[in-house]
Amino acid sequence: MPKYCRRCRVNKADVYLTYSREYLCLDCFNKFFENRVKKTVEKYRMFKGDVIGVGLSGGKDSAALLYSLRKLYPEKKLVAIHLYHGIGEYSRDSYEQARKLSEMLDVELHVFDYKKKLGIIIPDVEYTRYKNKVCSVCGIIRRWALSRAAKEVGVDVLATGHNLDDLVEVMLNLFITGEFDQLRRLKPVLPPEHPSQVWKVKPLFRSPEMDNFFYAMYNDLPVKRVSCPYYNTARSIRRKRLLDEWEKVERNIKFQLLSTFTKKLMPLIDKKEDLPYKTCQVCGGPSMGEVCSACRRISMIKEALEKKN
Amino acid sequence: MPKYCRRCRVNKADVYLTYSREYLCLDCFNKFFENRVKKTVEKYRMFKGDVIGVGLSGGKDSAALLYSLRKLYPEKKLVAIHLYHGIGEYSRDSYEQARKLSEMLDVELHVFDYKKKLGIIIPDVEYTRYKNKVCSVCGIIRRWALSRAAKEVGVDVLATGHNLDDLVEVMLNLFITGEFDQLRRLKPVLPPEHPSQVWKVKPLFRSPEMDNFFYAMYNDLPVKRVSCPYYNTARSIRRKRLLDEWEKVERNIKFQLLSTFTKKLMPLIDKKEDLPYKTCQVCGGPSMGEVCSACRRISMIKEALEKKN
Repeated sequence: MPKYCRRCRVNKADVYLTYSREYLCLDCFNKFFENRVKKTVEKYRMFKGDVIGVGLSGGKDSAALLYSLRKLYPEKKLVAIHLYHGIGEYSRDSYEQARKLSEMLDVELHVFDYKKKLGIIIPDVEYTRYKNKVCSVCGIIRRWALSRAAKEVGVDVLATGHNLDDLVEVMLNLFITGEFDQLRRLKPVLPPEHPSQVWKVKPLFRSPEMDNFFYAMYNDLPVKRVSCPYYNTARSIRRKRLLDEWEKVERNIKFQLLSTFTKKLMPLIDKKEDLPYKTCQVCGGPSMGEVCSACRRISMIKEALEKKN
Repeated sequence: MPKYCRRCRVNKADVYLTYSREYLCLDCFNKFFENRVKKTVEKYRMFKGDVIGVGLSGGKDSAALLYSLRKLYPEKKLVAIHLYHGIGEYSRDSYEQARKLSEMLDVELHVFDYKKKLGIIIPDVEYTRYKNKVCSVCGIIRRWALSRAAKEVGVDVLATGHNLDDLVEVMLNLFITGEFDQLRRLKPVLPPEHPSQVWKVKPLFRSPEMDNFFYAMYNDLPVKRVSCPYYNTARSIRRKRLLDEWEKVERNIKFQLLSTFTKKLMPLIDKKEDLPYKTCQVCGGPSMGEVCSACRRISMIKEALEKKN
């Protein structure tokens, strides 16, 4: 016997939400998803201005973000920002999907091309002593580049597609390793910490990964099909699986952990750590030392490239 | 082929420690266990005085604690403190084992008998509206009674047998529910927060539950065999199982969580919460209001008893 949608009670159900144990039809799921984005944006007053930058990687999360924001806020100026890492077929596919979605939604797309802007591409990390930590170096450069691109484009706020599962997993990792100062970066609304930065917001921080996947799929959004060849899954997947197992026994656990991290732990850290940022002498961005960690990585990669040639 | 002890390499192995993947013989396990207790007591400067009270419930953890402390510190005056809850066969068995161990070690045993001291026994909770929360009421009264008994006996420090697994599980629960202020109570060394209190220390806070069990068993310590009829296992067991599963994948996870809680989180809470304790008008102990939560529970039980008779 087919299940009917719990909300409209008219259509047959297409989606099952494990955390709320609800069967929904496509229409009701879309409404439910978009309503959560809207409530998040409004409750946390995420739009501090009229020009909203949206990090668009080509993946399901950022596609769901751009699509839902365009639908919910037709009056806002949205600018999609895509980082072109130069990772062969993976980057070509990612860019292609980002381009398609921007055209489909009539949103301006700003591409930050690593080769043109920085003179390097991510595969060049293989020539350095970080060759077994490409992911980690890429993460440092990515955060830096997105922030820089947002400033170049002149947006007021930069929105990214971080989902509930990723955030809880990263928070748990940082909690376990005791890196409390890194936890601040994950706040749903992060004010500029330096004049070179813009506001950073995460409108999907309460959206489970699966919901973003369904939303992108059911709305036929163009999403990349190629996986990153450098993506190192071991620890991340292990903890994610643990959280998924945990969720089977306590279905609210991810929301509960998110709430503890954001409402209880982060305010404690915030009060304690007022980081005295310096200005990086290379890029002019925030830095703990004379040169920021991204610029140090980039110049190291350039040196390795010169030696090689 | 039998395994040999990893440390002495002479005797056959009797114990396998999952977290360090070591096979040990009984002698080496005893040395290893006692050395960890000694290092904990000394590193955290737990003995703030010459008279040490040891909470002795009759269970494996507190038996392992009293036995190892007696062996390690023959010069210290130890006083065992036993709470007699009046829970039928369970309490009789618990008391009997506590008495045997104290005699065996020639340690003075101080019994705090609820019926004589408070005019109630734990089964009386069943006559109140807390009848489905006996465990929770018992916990509140137990902490209060142990603290009070320690002061009566005149010890300088009260040591309890809290093990690693219990502590990590309780910490995780308090973390998830956001009860950060309750977390302070679990510090390995807790200074008096009120003139009516003594120092509270947990010399086994780095000892896994299984190690305490092995230590008590291999040294033939008298340990209670009867389980408490009120013990409510559901949530606690569920989260403990989760931690055990987690440990199979990351064998250091309990130590890692313990370290994050005690070294990273607790200092943040400590700075924030300087609790302004009042004095309970009934018992003279610390209280958040006019009457402390233990005295409120006790008088409620007495009222219910009067109504019943």
